[in-house]
This record gives sequence, structure tokens and C-alpha cells, in this order.
Amino acid sequence: MCFHYHRTVRFQDTDAAGVVYFANVLGICHEVYEESLANSNINIKAFFTNPSMAFPIVHASVDFLRPMYCGDNLVISLSPQKIGLEKFEITYKITIDEVIVAKAITRHVCIDVSSRTKQELPDYMHNWLETNHRDAEITERRKSREEVM
Amino acid sequence: MCFHYHRTVRFQDTDAAGVVYFANVLGICHEVYEESLANSNINIKAFFTNPSMAFPIVHASVDFLRPMYCGDNLVISLSPQKIGLEKFEITYKITIDEVIVAKAITRHVCIDVSSRTKQELPDYMHNWLETNHRDAEITERRKSREEVM
Amino acid sequence: MCFHYHRTVRFQDTDAAGVVYFANVLGICHEVYEESLANSNINIKAFFTNPSMAFPIVHASVDFLRPMYCGDNLVISLSPQKIGLEKFEITYKITIDEVIVAKAITRHVCIDVSSRTKQELPDYMHNWLETNHRDAEITERRKSREEVM
Amino acid sequence: MCFHYHRTVRFQDTDAAGVVYFANVLGICHEVYEESLANSNINIKAFFTNPSMAFPIVHASVDFLRPMYCGDNLVISLSPQKIGLEKFEITYKITIDEVIVAKAITRHVCIDVSSRTKQELPDYMHNWLETNHRDAEITERRKSREEVM
Repeated sequence: MCFHYHRTVRFQDTDAAGVVYFANVLGICHEVYEESLANSNINIKAFFTNPSMAFPIVHASVDFLRPMYCGDNLVISLSPQKIGLEKFEITYKITIDEVIVAKAITRHVCIDVSSRTKQELPDYMHNWLETNHRDAEITERRKSREEVM
Repeated sequence: MCFHYHRTVRFQDTDAAGVVYFANVLGICHEVYEESLANSNINIKAFFTNPSMAFPIVHASVDFLRPMYCGDNLVISLSPQKIGLEKFEITYKITIDEVIVAKAITRHVCIDVSSRTKQELPDYMHNWLETNHRDAEITERRKSREEVM
Repeated sequence: MCFHYHRTVRFQDTDAAGVVYFANVLGICHEVYEESLANSNINIKAFFTNPSMAFPIVHASVDFLRPMYCGDNLVISLSPQKIGLEKFEITYKITIDEVIVAKAITRHVCIDVSSRTKQELPDYMHNWLETNHRDAEITERRKSREEVM
Repeated sequence: MCFHYHRTVRFQDTDAAGVVYFANVLGICHEVYEESLANSNINIKAFFTNPSMAFPIVHASVDFLRPMYCGDNLVISLSPQKIGLEKFEITYKITIDEVIVAKAITRHVCIDVSSRTKQELPDYMHNWLETNHRDAEITERRKSREEVM
């Protein structure tokens, strides 16, 4: 019910160490964000190409628990949360065969593109936040229930 | 029947001109190659990570007919052909809404990785070539028939 | 005398085969193009960020002669040529220790960005073409003379 | 005296928002790390290609204070610190015209590549840590003195 995204690790994602190049993991997380927006009926082209309002990332962090190899089938979960009138944060968990291999966070601020000043989050982002946050809550509650039973 | 791959243009694929950065189109084509190999039951991790035999690209070319924007839904067709005992070539066509937006070619040579000397193509690559080439031929014949009818 | 650019191969340029990922070679060539424009006193930020006139690539090709490893010191030469009122082509040669490891071509067309229609090349691009082409000619003539002597 | 690296923002670094794509900032920081290693007479090719000992990143974070545009001249400072027998952390500051535009951290752990188990940092990494850390301390002390005067 929570937003999940399937992604195969590509040759281009890897480096000479034979595993995914560290910064590419954040790029993979951004794909999940894009897909979740599209899933909420947001027009991706309009959202990212010459928009009047944008949501640039002001902070990102990532923890690497296990290496990811070319061909690995990743499942990435996305869980966004509003953290202010103009801000939200997304938590990502990347798993392979249900084992967590990386966790990441991106923090976004809403701005007016021409002036680059902060703006309140618009309705379509509230909808996206609520849809995906509620899904996450339902998943959490279900998990707790399953643990009890 | 011919091998096709669906790919959404991601924000990371684009540049400050608002469209896909030219070199990234070849990276997208390589994804199609990887997916077609996986589709022929080739283990992608073993194929690309520390293999004894590899198929490096010795030539690539790409023609850009129309710009591709973030969120565009690409359909990419792949058609490989053997061009020698140790070589094959792949032709890619990228379309949006059935309009061709780019065409590309990659030429690969089979090598022994430790000595970096040319090797004859192994059976699993012959199988991959035949499967995808036959599919391409069937599609071509079907198209001709449809044009006659 | 001809335009040359020095570039160290970075870890990010490589893939799990331990060498530069094929499409990244074209990205490295584009860096040389950017640097040669800056060298002709063209403002790179204005040239690539929201310009009214742009020079998108309509064709690119690349030949790979030898693998490039992380830490390799590349020397890349650029030689542009006008091939029409609205078009130019750039030839790149990448060497390591004076041995050619790759050759590439990019073909560019001048467009009005808002209408995406072809435009004649502006004066600043003629200047850039002449400066770098004349340099290339001088180098060629010098080479011929040296071969005679 | 502290390790600094100059880097022009390239067209490939940017996205359709016209600025550097967030994850690419970490890639730029990794370039600084590579350059500082080379500056300590570490062989970059041997360090990153099929080594027996490696220093994968287990954590990375980045704060974005101002946008970076194509053509911007970045100055990036690197300051590493040992944080355990097998671990070190690098702090990066990215400036344009002496104004900080981004800050980043990467945390690395020393491993034996074949077993992927933790190892104590080798001598050459201690040398690199001391050289660059002492430089950073000198810079800090000089700054304090200047503030006093």
C-alpha cells in the first residue's frame, strides 16, 4: 500500500569497485520521488521543466549498509513528511531480497523559481504528502498488528 | 515480438537546456541491451561483474531527431546483428508516441578479459543474437505484410 | 597551439569493468568544447543557461581504441569545422602518453531556442570556429613540414 | 596551505532546473578526494582499480545553500579526520567567490576487498590524513589569529 518502486541496478550505476557509485544511490532515490509524483497524477514534464514553483533539495544524506551490484533488483520505499509550511522530507529505504542495503533522506523547500524565495506548499503537494504518508501509516499499523499476532 | 523497452525520462537525464543530455541517450540504449540480455536468461551480475569474457563497445553513434523532456515515455527497440566471428552490432530506435526521436548504434567485440584479446562469440551470445534478430525479422515481415494489405 | 585540454579520469567515470563507461567519453569531449568556448571569451553560464540561441548536438559518434582507467591523464584535442550556414562539426582526439585511445565527433546545429528553428551561426561562433580551426591548420602544416624535414 | 581544488561546473553537471543536479555535488566532492590522494603520491589507478584494500563510503551528507550554475568556478576545500582504527571522515566546503554554496561529509571505512571485512587504516592513509589534517589545523590557527588581530 505504501509507495514502492522496483529498479534494476544498471552497468552505468557502477564504478571500478564493481558496485553502485555512492552518489548514484541518491539519483536512484530521486527516481522514486519522480515516480511517486506521477502516481499522484502530477505532470512530471510540467513539474520539472520551466515551472514557476519548484522544490529544490536543501539537504540529503545516505547510509550504505551493503554493496549493490549490477543486475541487483532493488525495491525502494518512499515515505514523505511535511516539516514546515514550506518544507518536506522524504525517507527512502532500499532493499534487496527484503534486506535493507541503504537508507536515504532528502529535504525539500518550496520556492518561487523567478525570485528564488520560499513559498507555502501548494495543494497538489499536500495531496501527494497525505496520500503517501497515510499509506506509510497504514503499513506501519499493519506491521504492528502482524507482530502482535 | 521484437524486443522493446519502456523508459521514463528522469530529471537526472536532463541538462540546463531542459532536455536529455546527449551522451545520456547512449546510456539509456545500454539499459535496453542489459534488459534484453536478462530477457535471454543471462545472469546480468555475472555478465558485467568480474567476468572472464566481456563485450566492450568499440564504436557508438547516435542521431538526435527531436528533444526528449523529463517525464517523456520512451519506447526503445533493440535489434542486434552478428558482423563477424567476434563482433556484433546493435541498432536502437527511440520513439515517443510512435515518432522516432533518436537512433543509435553500438558495436561490440568479444574479448578475453585477462589478456584483452579477441575471442569468438560464445553460445549464449549466439542464442541472444538469434532470438532478438529473428524477432526483428518477424516484425519486419509482419510490417511488409501489413503494408501490402 | 591547437586547443588541448588535460583531464584526469575520475572514479565516477568508470564502471564495473574497471574502465571508463563508454558514454562518459562523449561527456568528457563536451567538457573540452565548453573549455574551448570559455577560452574564446564566451560566457559559459549565459551560453548554456536560458540562452535565446543554442547549438544542440544532432549527431555524435565515438571510436574506442584502448581502455581508459581511473587516474589516467588524458590529453584531448578539439578541432571544429563549419559544415553549413547553421552547422558545425567538432573532431576530438583523446590520447594517453601520446597514444590515441579514442576519437569522437559531435555535429551541432544553431537554433532559436523558443521556436526551435534553425538559425545562421552568430559572429561569436564564427570567431570561435576560426580561432580553433586556424590553430588546427597551423598544427597540421607544422606536422607536414616536420615530416618533410 | 589546506587542500583546495578548483572545478568549473560543466553542462553535464546540470539538470532541467538549470543548476547542478543535487547528487552530482557529491561526485564533485569525490573528485577532490581523488586529487588530494594523488597529491600525497598515492597511485590513483592502483588505489581504485582492483585493489586488495579499499575505503568505501558508508555515509554521506550534503547541505545546499545556494544554486550552482554551468560555468561557475567552484573552489572546494577538503579536511579529513580519523574517527577510529578503521574509519575516517572528510568535510568538504564548496565556495563561489568566497561564499559557501554547499557543505558535504563522506565517511569511509577501510576494508579487505576479498573478504569485505574491516581493516586498520594503512600507513599511506595515515600519511594522507596527517598531511591534510595538519594543513587544515594551520589554516584554522591562522584564521583565529587573523580574527584576533
